[in-house]
Order: sequence, then C-alpha cells, then structure tokens
Amino acid sequence: MAKDPYLLTPGPLTTSIGTKSAMLHDWGSRDQAFIETTARIRDRLLLIAGASESHVCVPLQGSGTFVVEATLGTLIPKDGKTLVVINGAYGDRMTEMLDIMGREYDVYKTAEDVPSDPAEIDAILSKDLAITHVAAVYCETTSGILNPIAEIAAVVAKQRRSLLIDAMSAFGALPLKATDVQFDALMASSNKCLEGVPGVGFAIVRKKALEACAGNAHSLSLDLHAQWVGLEKSGQWRFTPPTQVLAALDKALDQFAGNGGTEGRFTRYSKNCKIIVDGMREMGFETLLPDDLQAPIIITFRTPADAAFKFETFYDLIAEQGFLIYPGKLTVAESFRIGCIGNLGEAEMHGALDAVRSAIERMGVTNLSPAQV
Amino acid sequence: MAKDPYLLTPGPLTTSIGTKSAMLHDWGSRDQAFIETTARIRDRLLLIAGASESHVCVPLQGSGTFVVEATLGTLIPKDGKTLVVINGAYGDRMTEMLDIMGREYDVYKTAEDVPSDPAEIDAILSKDLAITHVAAVYCETTSGILNPIAEIAAVVAKQRRSLLIDAMSAFGALPLKATDVQFDALMASSNKCLEGVPGVGFAIVRKKALEACAGNAHSLSLDLHAQWVGLEKSGQWRFTPPTQVLAALDKALDQFAGNGGTEGRFTRYSKNCKIIVDGMREMGFETLLPDDLQAPIIITFRTPADAAFKFETFYDLIAEQGFLIYPGKLTVAESFRIGCIGNLGEAEMHGALDAVRSAIERMGVTNLSPAQV
Repeated sequence: MAKDPYLLTPGPLTTSIGTKSAMLHDWGSRDQAFIETTARIRDRLLLIAGASESHVCVPLQGSGTFVVEATLGTLIPKDGKTLVVINGAYGDRMTEMLDIMGREYDVYKTAEDVPSDPAEIDAILSKDLAITHVAAVYCETTSGILNPIAEIAAVVAKQRRSLLIDAMSAFGALPLKATDVQFDALMASSNKCLEGVPGVGFAIVRKKALEACAGNAHSLSLDLHAQWVGLEKSGQWRFTPPTQVLAALDKALDQFAGNGGTEGRFTRYSKNCKIIVDGMREMGFETLLPDDLQAPIIITFRTPADAAFKFETFYDLIAEQGFLIYPGKLTVAESFRIGCIGNLGEAEMHGALDAVRSAIERMGVTNLSPAQV
Repeated sequence: MAKDPYLLTPGPLTTSIGTKSAMLHDWGSRDQAFIETTARIRDRLLLIAGASESHVCVPLQGSGTFVVEATLGTLIPKDGKTLVVINGAYGDRMTEMLDIMGREYDVYKTAEDVPSDPAEIDAILSKDLAITHVAAVYCETTSGILNPIAEIAAVVAKQRRSLLIDAMSAFGALPLKATDVQFDALMASSNKCLEGVPGVGFAIVRKKALEACAGNAHSLSLDLHAQWVGLEKSGQWRFTPPTQVLAALDKALDQFAGNGGTEGRFTRYSKNCKIIVDGMREMGFETLLPDDLQAPIIITFRTPADAAFKFETFYDLIAEQGFLIYPGKLTVAESFRIGCIGNLGEAEMHGALDAVRSAIERMGVTNLSPAQV
C-alpha cells in the first residue's frame, strides 16, 4: 500500500499510528468502559484549558462548525446581542449562524491581514450597551493570523460582557488558560492541534454561564446545555457518540501530555512554521503576514504572478511527492496555504520544501513574486 | 489485549476488522482521493435505496439524530404542518425537534407494542388538509417493533403529502426501495445495519423536493439543502467530514455488497433474531412483541418479576462473558433489549444465550415470568 501523504492542511491532519490504531476496537456507547473514556477526555480537555475549577467540557458530535453553532445557539439568549469580531471566513460564518437563528448582532471587521484591535472593541462596547456577547476567533485559519485574544478578553471582561472564543485551530498549541484569560466559552475540535481524527468538537464553558442556558438553543442536536445535563446525569452521551473517534482522541491526549502539552506543541509547530516560512521566502515566495502576526498553524503565501504558475498543477506536483497543501481562502488576493501542524516535524517540513522546489522547477516558474496589489 | 465484547445493542455495533482497519490512514478532506470516497459512498447508498434516478444522498456529520433533525428542518417549510407517527422514543424525539424549531405538528400515537395503523393515518390526513408532511419510524428501536411503512407510504402518497421515514435501524436490512415505496426522504446512519462505525448519518432525499428547500433550515450546520449544493458543486463537504469514519463506511459498503446486500443482511439478522427469541423463550423469558411485529433488529424482553433478578447484575454477568446487552427504553413495562445486528452470526448468538443462562443461574433466578400487567 502506498504511504499516506503528509497533510500540510488546517485539519484533518497527519495523526500518529498510535492514535489511528486506537480505533481498531468496538465499544458499547452506554457501557462503563466508554463512559470512562468520555470522562477522561472531558477532564483532560478542561485541564489543558486551565479551567477545571471554573468551566465544564461539553463535547459534541460533528465538525468544529457544529460546536461553534451550538455554543452560539446555547450561550446567547434569544434576546441577546452579539458583537462578532471578524477578519476572515470563520468570523463571517458566525454571522451566517446568527442570521439563521434570528439573533441580533453587530460586526467589527478588519481586513484579512489586520488583527482585531482591542481598543476598537472597547469603543464599540462602550457605545452599544445592548451588546451582551462578543464572539472572536483566536487564530483565523483563513489567513493564519493571530488575533490578540488575551487583550480582547481583558476588554470584554472590563466591559462585563460574555466572551466566546473560536479557538478551533489554536487550542492545544497557542497559550490560552482560563486562569489568565477570562472567557465564558471556547470552542475547538479533535482534529486540529490535539492531533486526533475528525468527528467531534467540544466547548469549554463557564459552569455558571451554562447553568443559565436551558431552553436557549435553536436545535435539539446542537443544544450544549442539554448535552451537558445528559453527560452529568449518566456519563453517557444523549445521542450516539463517534466511539472510535473518541478513542483516537483519548490516545492523542496521552501523546499530547507525553509531548509537553501546549508548550511542547507550540515549540514544535513554531519550528515547523519557521522552516516553511524561511524556506519559501528563500525561494522567493511572499507570505501574506509579517512574522509577528503569523500564528504557527497555517501560513498563507501569495500566488506568484508568473503565468507559468498554476495552483492546480503546483498542488498535483507536490501531491505526487507525498505532501498535500491547501488552497487559499482570501477574498482580497490570490493565495495558497501550507499548514505546519499535525504529527510532523523538521524532516517533513524540509521534505515539503524540496517538493515545492521541484514543482516550481517542473512548472518552469522563474519569478515567484506576487502581482502587486 | 482482551477481546472486544460482542455488542448486542442497536449500535454502535460489532464491526469487522476490515472495516476498522480502513481507518488506519489519514486523508486530506479536500483532496481528490477523499472526494472520490465521498462520491462512491453517496452513489452506493442511493443504489441500496433503489433511488439512483429519483433521489440524492446527502451525508451529514454527527449521529442519526442530527440527520433526522436536519431532514425535518430542511424538508418541512416554516409554515408546513407535520403529522408525527409515534410508538416509541424516536417518534417522540421528532416532536421535540419540531417544538424547538417552532413548526406546527399533530401526533398520531399508539402504544409501544402497537404498530401504526395506515387506516388511521389515512383518516387523519383526510380530515386535516393543513398537514403537509408525515414523519414516521420504520423500525422503532424503543421496542424493536416493525411499522407497516409500505402501507403508510401508500396512504401518504394517495393523500398527496410528503413522507419522511426514520429508517435508522432498518436501512440495509429491511426492504425499502424508492421504486416500491414512495417517500421524499429517508434517514439512516453509518453504524446500524450497514455495519460501519458511528459518526455520520445520511438522508436519501427526492431531488425535486430538495430543490425547493433553500432557506428552510433552522441551522447552518444542519441545512441539508446547503450540504447538498456544496457537495454537488465541488464534491467536497462544506465542513470538515469525519474522514476515517467515512473510510470505514466505504469499506463496510464493500462488505455489504459482497454479503448479498439488503437481502443477505435480512437473512442473517433474521436467523440471529430467531436464535435469540427461541433460546430466551425456552429459558422462560417473554418477548414484548409477537413474532409478526418483531423486526430482526433488536428484541425487547420483559424483566422477570423474580426478586433475585437485578438488571445491573444480569448485565455485568453477561458482560463478563464478553457480550454487551442493552437496557430497556419502554415507558410501560420493565424490560431489557438484545440486539441481533452487527458483524455477528449464529455462533455469537448461541454464545450470548449461554452467557444469559449462566447469568440467570449465578443470580439464582428460578422464575423468568414477568410481572403481570
């Protein structure tokens, strides 16, 4: 069998064989062994968030988007008003959710390469006292930009509003502890920096906030309050959980702890990111973001203006060499992305750079500068 | 490592090692290889439903409940009125969903051991012309009862209403072809009679009906119309799919075809069911249902009145011998359930009966008759 390609994407990611092998079993979802797996996962996710005392962990079947929608639908009351902080597709998506739910919101939007400014958020909250909640994205994978979430949290706390953080691509790699950063909910998933397989998301929710949320949700399946009450009552999931996906996450969390937790992952991903950024710049590619705005998760490169450069060909030539990169998602410029997370290290990053070099050569691209915008 | 217990439950089930081994890889969810996996699964599910010409298959992340809710939310317009046909918890659950969505419905309810009567449905539809949709459960796993879905479909078609069938525990084992039975949607999941692992559901939806459903859904994540449009456009999922779960389903569908499809599965499950029913009756247990109402999926037994019988002890003693049974869900009588689906055959059914015999003996239960109700 051919080797799996390395996934230089924002998830699903390359996972360890140990994590995948954990799925070679069947579990009764209402049996004690599986109840213990669920409890162990919930406890460890809380610990990673530094939130064991203040918050509860509510896992939810589905993709990360499902748990973001569930958190908005459950935490924001029907008469609440949300400030959605946006600089990419995942911020935009939260407004789509609120539109469908029919819940009021305002938007604070910056360009895809401009981080959200806490002072602007402060000003908006000072002016509009009807705003009850602020929803923000920590690392916006549209561009890979790092938003100043601790500073945003400080402003929201000062203004006594409730903060909901989409930490999907950040959790487990970028610093975020409930003991340092005040939030009512953060949302993340199994298949990002925790390096599990996709199929389950989770929210870390302040217990006092969640207790007040019965009946808020716009959906039975996406009701985080009911999900939490069910789990607390029997340790069992309300509806069939993805047993194998959870077993893989349980195993991935063993490895996460063994590899130095969030700090260990931050260190490895930062090294990966530097190898890719340095190597690509050396070839002549330009990153969208300056280094101080770049999260070590996924890197956006501007598409070269050279007519010989075709993204589809570039993708295929790199794929042939065993690496999958990712298309761009920017609305403002042609781009592509290379992820640096997953169970990958220096060797694979250098391998990816070799694959890029070879692709460029085979395409006959000589000038890697992007079109000037 | 200890052998996994055999799962005599309504799912997650015992799956083959081939199906589980299919998960030992990583896929890029937007890569061509995975796009092909998704397309192959969708095509084969349509084929099983005899619906390749008339319907489309829309898979959805999450448990079966997620896809039931998504189907109701997407197919029933905001001003529609639904008749919910109920004889167990899964029928009841559909009314909970409609309550949360704020959509009008009426209920036709029979006792948990009484199948829905097509003539009654006909009468209700004749009387209430405001009813646009009928939602019914094929095999209600609360009891294991078989509802006369073909006859219900004929009545709903005659009355020119739209039928939505919860075929969760029936699809792939009980006969149901769009060419014979007229329905606008049926909902099922990966981890029932198709013998995949849990984490994805799907709806088989009449294309003409779905085309009219843009904007109906109460949720972004659970919008089957948007999910379908996204899949048709690029072959990719809107939001991260559970890649390994889908790879397992793809493999499970190979085995499904190789084992004689729905008929093959019906034959094996029917044999399994007969072994369990006969063996348990021989010991003195009573089934809730007469044989002609019993679907070969899961069997409800009345709890013996003998004070020496404790379900928790019974469960544990059987579990010790490598079999997991299932608690009862009836509201009207004490009961427990034994499933007869999954990658199991005669040997495992006889093994389960041996485990029950030994448990009864060790508990010192002498009279297996239930309390008279």
